[in-house]
Amino acid sequence: MSGLHRLAAIAAAAMLVLAPLSVRADDLPSWNDGAAKQGIVDFVSAVTTAGGTDYVAPDERVAVFDNDGTLWSEQPMYVQLAFALDRVKALAPEHPEWKDTEPFKSVLAGDAAGVAATGEKGLVEILAVTHAGMTSDEFTKIATDWISTAKHPKTGKLYTEMVYQPMLELISYLKANDFKVFIVSGGGIEFMRPWTERVYGIGPENVVGSSIKSKYEVQDGKPAIVRLPDVDFVDDGAGKPIGIYTHIGRRPIAAFGNSDGDFQMLEWTTSRTGRSFGLIVHHDDGDREYAYDRQSHFGRLDKGLDEGPKHGWTIVSMKNDWKQIYPE
Amino acid sequence: MSGLHRLAAIAAAAMLVLAPLSVRADDLPSWNDGAAKQGIVDFVSAVTTAGGTDYVAPDERVAVFDNDGTLWSEQPMYVQLAFALDRVKALAPEHPEWKDTEPFKSVLAGDAAGVAATGEKGLVEILAVTHAGMTSDEFTKIATDWISTAKHPKTGKLYTEMVYQPMLELISYLKANDFKVFIVSGGGIEFMRPWTERVYGIGPENVVGSSIKSKYEVQDGKPAIVRLPDVDFVDDGAGKPIGIYTHIGRRPIAAFGNSDGDFQMLEWTTSRTGRSFGLIVHHDDGDREYAYDRQSHFGRLDKGLDEGPKHGWTIVSMKNDWKQIYPE
Repeated sequence: MSGLHRLAAIAAAAMLVLAPLSVRADDLPSWNDGAAKQGIVDFVSAVTTAGGTDYVAPDERVAVFDNDGTLWSEQPMYVQLAFALDRVKALAPEHPEWKDTEPFKSVLAGDAAGVAATGEKGLVEILAVTHAGMTSDEFTKIATDWISTAKHPKTGKLYTEMVYQPMLELISYLKANDFKVFIVSGGGIEFMRPWTERVYGIGPENVVGSSIKSKYEVQDGKPAIVRLPDVDFVDDGAGKPIGIYTHIGRRPIAAFGNSDGDFQMLEWTTSRTGRSFGLIVHHDDGDREYAYDRQSHFGRLDKGLDEGPKHGWTIVSMKNDWKQIYPE
Repeated sequence: MSGLHRLAAIAAAAMLVLAPLSVRADDLPSWNDGAAKQGIVDFVSAVTTAGGTDYVAPDERVAVFDNDGTLWSEQPMYVQLAFALDRVKALAPEHPEWKDTEPFKSVLAGDAAGVAATGEKGLVEILAVTHAGMTSDEFTKIATDWISTAKHPKTGKLYTEMVYQPMLELISYLKANDFKVFIVSGGGIEFMRPWTERVYGIGPENVVGSSIKSKYEVQDGKPAIVRLPDVDFVDDGAGKPIGIYTHIGRRPIAAFGNSDGDFQMLEWTTSRTGRSFGLIVHHDDGDREYAYDRQSHFGRLDKGLDEGPKHGWTIVSMKNDWKQIYPE
């Protein structure tokens, strides 16, 4: 045995000894002991135990996470909506006509009810002026600059500091067990991609979301992707299994959400042949975060509360199951 | 130092010693020595050398490959077209009216000119009856069954045996150097996904292609994704940078194609800031494969031959640069 082969053999042996550590240690320290945590650990153990009846090969270990309300806070409004409203304010000096035109007039006056009264038409107009009309690189810079400085109105934290520590641990735990982890969000795919890798450890190629159309063009010899003011795909509700089909091309074995917009994603995941896992984060902690469900404008959870348990989905109580909400 | 830590340290040291092997060995044995092979090795060396001016972090090492004519043969017609025509024949007993209706009449009569005369309208009708109207699972089974048995009309090989050995080596070489390798094809995404992992080592989540629309629905309590007879996205020409933007969300640093349908993908890739690599496979080997370029119906290469070299793209001569075409 040459020195090199010997080293390789030792390396392989060392890997065998080290590997089980990822299962044995407490990988979910921010989760209180209880049914939710146990359910996660039992599932991961079952699908990763070679030779077991529930074993799933690493290639097929796909886990999908909703973003708003599942990985970070979505109150008092979706973060991307806060971004869009801030952008309208930032762009207003170039658009004096907005002072007299809805929905911009209400946005600039801070009149939430007025914005809401403009309905879907108003929202699409806000989306068009804030998310389209620039190149992909320009939009990435705009989103990156905003997310690096914008603060939550209640906590004063950066939005990216308002991610859920127990879910970060869950993502790491799944990745340590050779899961491929994807975000499948109703939010805009290009709004999320600039920061998901840094914040969640999930790269842009593993982000699925809603999108607008875009076109490729060469301007003055320089190729660019230009964002257009037309909705291309809405990755919410029944759109989520379609987004998964289009982007991932594998049926997930685990799905994590928090609202009825995630219902079909969990339904699609947990109706596969073979073991699967579905989990809903229930926002019931008004002291440490927010308490809302059936009546909420953002992240409404109604059908999932009633039907989730019948499907065998785990309902997580943020109040009781999580030791800690945000990272230290 | 505990025994475990000691083992971990040894493992880490062994990895450091072993890692450079992936660069030093000849990872491209089916490539003749010459400018093309040297260009590939120089590029990979440059972007993987830590501390070098051209270094690219592993996360950003995205390589994109066209499929038809780049990874496998596309003559005398695209494989997916052969699939569609075979499907029409297989479905004909259920559709007696096809005997008198174009484009099906010409397909069933083996009249290629007649099919061609029906134009895009005819092709869309063929696509609709062969690719839509079933669930995602059903289509996967249909495509899998066909690709497992269908033979090429000239060589009598399975189509999946007509992949290019030098390109398989190139994919492995890039992966060994921590590249993320994607297929970006004008072909149907769901036609490719069932077999790309087995044949190329590229999983479905790394396949980008053209797609039709689909919808999620629950039939008799069983969720399904149903394929619809409407084109959703054409991943060809200027569509390829858009497909890359939508699916991958990172700009590639290396792109490999063979036809003018790949022009914009290479243009987008090689106009990035920082080192990049573009390569076009030129089919000039009529003895071992096919010889075609500017006049071909399938895989036409015209603009790329003229402008590729000006962009610094490597033009590969299959005849001169490849020792071997197909795997043994």
